[in-house]
Amino acid sequence: MRCAILTVGTEILFGQIVNTNAAYLSRELNLLGFDVMYHYTVGDNDGRLAEVIRTAFKDVDLIVTTGGLGPTEDDLTKETACAVLHDELAVHAESLAALERIARLRGRKMTLNNYKQAMMPTRAVVFDNDAGSAPGFVLEDGGKSILCMPGPPREMHRMWERRAKPYLLQFSTGVIHYRLLRYFGIGESSLETKLLPLIDAQTDPTLATYAKEGECNVRVASKRESPEEAKAAVDEMARRVAALTGEFIYSFDGEDYNLAVGKELIRRGLTISACESCTGGMFSESLVSVPGISAAFDRGLVTYTEKAKMEELGVKPETLEKYTAESPETAIEMARGLREKTGSAICVSSTGVAGPGPYGDKPAGLMYVGISMDGYERVREIRTNRDDRRWNRHYCVLCMFDEIRKAIGFSPEL
Amino acid sequence: MRCAILTVGTEILFGQIVNTNAAYLSRELNLLGFDVMYHYTVGDNDGRLAEVIRTAFKDVDLIVTTGGLGPTEDDLTKETACAVLHDELAVHAESLAALERIARLRGRKMTLNNYKQAMMPTRAVVFDNDAGSAPGFVLEDGGKSILCMPGPPREMHRMWERRAKPYLLQFSTGVIHYRLLRYFGIGESSLETKLLPLIDAQTDPTLATYAKEGECNVRVASKRESPEEAKAAVDEMARRVAALTGEFIYSFDGEDYNLAVGKELIRRGLTISACESCTGGMFSESLVSVPGISAAFDRGLVTYTEKAKMEELGVKPETLEKYTAESPETAIEMARGLREKTGSAICVSSTGVAGPGPYGDKPAGLMYVGISMDGYERVREIRTNRDDRRWNRHYCVLCMFDEIRKAIGFSPEL
Repeated sequence: MRCAILTVGTEILFGQIVNTNAAYLSRELNLLGFDVMYHYTVGDNDGRLAEVIRTAFKDVDLIVTTGGLGPTEDDLTKETACAVLHDELAVHAESLAALERIARLRGRKMTLNNYKQAMMPTRAVVFDNDAGSAPGFVLEDGGKSILCMPGPPREMHRMWERRAKPYLLQFSTGVIHYRLLRYFGIGESSLETKLLPLIDAQTDPTLATYAKEGECNVRVASKRESPEEAKAAVDEMARRVAALTGEFIYSFDGEDYNLAVGKELIRRGLTISACESCTGGMFSESLVSVPGISAAFDRGLVTYTEKAKMEELGVKPETLEKYTAESPETAIEMARGLREKTGSAICVSSTGVAGPGPYGDKPAGLMYVGISMDGYERVREIRTNRDDRRWNRHYCVLCMFDEIRKAIGFSPEL
Repeated sequence: MRCAILTVGTEILFGQIVNTNAAYLSRELNLLGFDVMYHYTVGDNDGRLAEVIRTAFKDVDLIVTTGGLGPTEDDLTKETACAVLHDELAVHAESLAALERIARLRGRKMTLNNYKQAMMPTRAVVFDNDAGSAPGFVLEDGGKSILCMPGPPREMHRMWERRAKPYLLQFSTGVIHYRLLRYFGIGESSLETKLLPLIDAQTDPTLATYAKEGECNVRVASKRESPEEAKAAVDEMARRVAALTGEFIYSFDGEDYNLAVGKELIRRGLTISACESCTGGMFSESLVSVPGISAAFDRGLVTYTEKAKMEELGVKPETLEKYTAESPETAIEMARGLREKTGSAICVSSTGVAGPGPYGDKPAGLMYVGISMDGYERVREIRTNRDDRRWNRHYCVLCMFDEIRKAIGFSPEL
């Protein structure tokens, strides 16, 4: 089925928001076997919105929209969808009840705006929103369908997964199955070169490589008649990919590095603590986002000042003076000191120059990761040659997870 | 002048790339006083590309495109622009010379593809590309103009700055100025209700409200003849908005909460330390992303286990036993203990149930923020009624910044 993605919102035309919704929905719709022909963005204006919908319907049968379902006057998607597809709005009892429940829980009164949010096209299939207040819906007329979801990505993603995707599956021809292989420590060009024999010969399954903030992904996808066939084809290809590049793979199932490592720590019953300087808590934050991690994670220390490094971790004043805080010597003393203090099986540290500028004679992106375990100590030097503070910290955290994976000898299984 | 942004490339319709070009050009065009009415994306297909250009020209006078200027067969933007605006391609001597120079520098022979890249519409104003090989151009016909630039963001940004923006300045009428007011502690519906008198009366400056992950933004924008006029009009309206809703505003300049509070701590020379349980380092991480924060931030502790809370912060075993770790009593003992340990002027703590599930009889989203300063102690109870672990932690971090803002009595100045 041919489809278009329509993003509604003046803030996007002002450039205040990057349109990540269109990219997300493009990936998802392609995986369901739909052909995405156009992306459109229009502002909160009913005339132009209606015109774009009519234009798109000349060439596609399905339009998926995000945005414009909020409670305010400039939220016009529902009204416009009704105008084009010959329906009208009426109070939708379930949506009203849900909104009343939310208001009650938050101790707020229902405003007139809230009632507007409970109005739905009479012929629509309504999608409840369990992450926010605006429900979504799909409305069909004469073979043309419009599927409308809220704009905030978190709400949209949940509604897509729980409600919209299952609804659209009935129109999907063939089934796409895929695995997302996650890589760290190899660039996209090298990865593609290694996989070239497989990429050149591909028809189905297909292989695609993506660069992603210091990492790489490989998507192995197959479109077949049955889910079983597709899965078998993908697994077979993933095995061939792993035979060529397995040492760099940390997940065969699209898991982020924190999740892949965190789950393995829990599985093995290993305790961990972290002390961070340049990453400033980003490692701990990332690890704590793994459900159930309290079984493995004892504590994290953000020792930002030299005083904190000495008081909390017993880093020696001589070390700081002789080698500075941004040194391999300090990195390993931090990890070692934390292990003495906590007794955690694994202690990991970070220190260095996050940027944006250099620090003395040390360039932005020069960072060290220390790791201390029983009978195992190691320091990794990182040089990103970048002056992007956020990027450097993010990359350093990935290196911390990479060091842990290597230290415990973890290779994911297919 | 009304304009549209057209992004050309099948990879965007597959969702492999997020369309950051459209956001960049939107910001830039708006700042020049152009009205961006639409974003379009189409794949590498000449029929659909021509159709979208014709449709857009019904409503706009200028289309700015990126992508499809490369050397390969599926790069069709130039050919299509010529077809719609009645021109034809011919070898452009300067572009050819530039491509020959690049080939010579790289020690490569000119390929047939290179000659294709040197073909330009005969009536076009050509923009040379000093960051890549594909030149850009602007072509006009009967009052309608199409301005075409290459797709890779780095090349496009440079061509925009050096060539396209200076060219477009001659058509710029008026200048847009805007401020983004950031709110916490008020919902979008309530905010709009409070601002309704101003919103209803608006022509210029315009007011728009946006919800954003537990926060709200209000954009105040004005388009005038001169930057000074626009700025004065925006500031005047921002003052009226602040008079109605000022208590919830933490920034008049679009800054995130961590940045607004972090900069104020640095400005006042106040030291801060944090101890986190349910937020797991997210607060420290957020604070550390503020450049120069080492002047204010001493240390952060992620005391995830009861053992860590007792050892690091001196939380009493009786408190944990009688009230549990997820209690207001523990929250304040954490903050107090951290202040005794570090001597920081402000110590802030978090504890509670991030979710996704409840913990015993405590629901997901029940969290406490403690704050301890000289002569000031406070605990804030949070109930989000959500089971989204990431969202709850994020919201709790915002509350921590909110508590600090209130504790130090900080109201941003216009």
